[in-house]
Amino acid sequence: MRRPGEQELIARFFRPLATAPGAAMLSDDAATIPPADGAEMVVTVDAVVAGVHFFPDDPPDAIARKALRVNLSDLAAKGARPAGYLVTLALPDDWEVDWLEGFVEGLSATRRSFSVSLLGGDTVRTTGPLMVSITALGHAQEGRVPRRHGGAPGQRLYVTGTIGDAALGLALRQDPRLALKWDLRRAEREWLLDRYLIPEPRLALSSVVAAYAAASMDLSDGLVGDLAKLAGASQCGALVEAARIPLSPAAGRAALVDPTTLSTALTGGDDYELLIAIDPDDVDAFEAEAADCGVAVTDVGALVEGEGVEVESKGPPLALDRPGYAHF
Amino acid sequence: MRRPGEQELIARFFRPLATAPGAAMLSDDAATIPPADGAEMVVTVDAVVAGVHFFPDDPPDAIARKALRVNLSDLAAKGARPAGYLVTLALPDDWEVDWLEGFVEGLSATRRSFSVSLLGGDTVRTTGPLMVSITALGHAQEGRVPRRHGGAPGQRLYVTGTIGDAALGLALRQDPRLALKWDLRRAEREWLLDRYLIPEPRLALSSVVAAYAAASMDLSDGLVGDLAKLAGASQCGALVEAARIPLSPAAGRAALVDPTTLSTALTGGDDYELLIAIDPDDVDAFEAEAADCGVAVTDVGALVEGEGVEVESKGPPLALDRPGYAHF
Repeated sequence: MRRPGEQELIARFFRPLATAPGAAMLSDDAATIPPADGAEMVVTVDAVVAGVHFFPDDPPDAIARKALRVNLSDLAAKGARPAGYLVTLALPDDWEVDWLEGFVEGLSATRRSFSVSLLGGDTVRTTGPLMVSITALGHAQEGRVPRRHGGAPGQRLYVTGTIGDAALGLALRQDPRLALKWDLRRAEREWLLDRYLIPEPRLALSSVVAAYAAASMDLSDGLVGDLAKLAGASQCGALVEAARIPLSPAAGRAALVDPTTLSTALTGGDDYELLIAIDPDDVDAFEAEAADCGVAVTDVGALVEGEGVEVESKGPPLALDRPGYAHF
Repeated sequence: MRRPGEQELIARFFRPLATAPGAAMLSDDAATIPPADGAEMVVTVDAVVAGVHFFPDDPPDAIARKALRVNLSDLAAKGARPAGYLVTLALPDDWEVDWLEGFVEGLSATRRSFSVSLLGGDTVRTTGPLMVSITALGHAQEGRVPRRHGGAPGQRLYVTGTIGDAALGLALRQDPRLALKWDLRRAEREWLLDRYLIPEPRLALSSVVAAYAAASMDLSDGLVGDLAKLAGASQCGALVEAARIPLSPAAGRAALVDPTTLSTALTGGDDYELLIAIDPDDVDAFEAEAADCGVAVTDVGALVEGEGVEVESKGPPLALDRPGYAHF
């Protein structure tokens, strides 16, 4: 199939994603974002490279959805609502129109799910592997952006959703026989694989994060390793109770059969759930408002005096052989 | 030399560039930009790939300076002042610490020149060539962002600086013998080569652009081709008088000896000067205020009824065999 030049590529594939007026239909040098009263801008960028961050044969719509969603997850962690995003796409010489159609469909689906417009981008050729870099922008309440360093001893630690599914999904992807070992039903296996491919940015919780979080971050490199970063930035330690870690039915089943999966869940990356420190006085209001938003939050431990992360387990000792996963 | 991991890389190389408080010393999921009264945000992204957009043996500080400056040029074209930037750096497996030191020095020099802080970034490994993607953010006066489509017949067309130097610099780079053919002095040759390597974003003119420009863009793909885009977006035509095109002493000398260089100057890319349409009533004030800013602006023609770009030349006819240079 003939491959279009850059102008046609923008018009055909990317313009339909650029629904914000400030995107100027991608026909200008830059996009504009109107000011929002009492808001500061939150900006973040994350890039993924084929063969490093995703499997080259991953479905293109899944690659797009994950690349955009991990950035939206950072916005959620900072209590922001999305204002738009920009995408840099480095296409290898042998790129296919079909692939790009799938990729754009993934961005389009994410735009619909989270009302986020493409604001601009750059498409370049590369002699290397495909790369996607996404910059996401959001509005947060001025002075209410929770940082990693806002934690203090005594605060309770919450996580959203369930932990470890993506790490188990990745393990299943690398060794499909684990599904048998872990006694998973077909739907459970699919679900874990999906959790690795398509993270769920917790934007529904943004306003609650802005209102109550003393410190907050999203979990990309594993709960234990990321918690060490939050506790370190807050100059304190953390205590996690292993029995409180929320596991999905699929991960729970795997953990029953094979206790090492719990270590994987605690240290594996790609959760893209939020880790939130809440002052004890705010715990009730936080839990109630999170419930109103329909986002499950679970108290998994507390920030404590000292340093480092301790995982308290009543079961067999956990072999946390690595603190977290480094994508670099 | 031992190559550092991602955390050390951030601390050692990138943290010193992140001088804005909202960058949180690059130790958080996202950066914040405080609101500016009556300002809207302007955002743009541009990426460059080794072997496609620059020569792999270009000095690393020049690669960094150009990658950042071309984005600042987009901000200038929209009448914005810089609020910060984010950088995605895809490093090939064989990257060298020396190279990165040079690259960071280039960003650092640009930070000092234009008071622009790094706000965040992502460093990833690639099996392919080096790639740099930069997102620049700026504040512009609300409702005063000139678009490409704001032009109308009768408006005068201005360019900043001199046109064509970068294209001639690139030609010299590809065929050093041209220096002899064009009868260039050593300093002139160096100057043209530098104009290709290190563009000059016209941020000093931002406030004047915001105050007077009916339409504006920066020249990345050649004056004639880019003017066709501005005129097309404004649903009119354009007339350029070749004799009015501002040439540098070096380009002027080359044009005397070899008239084809004028075509190169008019159609070659990488000028990163501004193209600005000004209502006839505003011409005097625009010229006076631009002079106050110390930025040379030259009236090169006008927007006219009709479509397309006509270049009027009293000398030999210009062979404009290509309308502009496409980097993709």
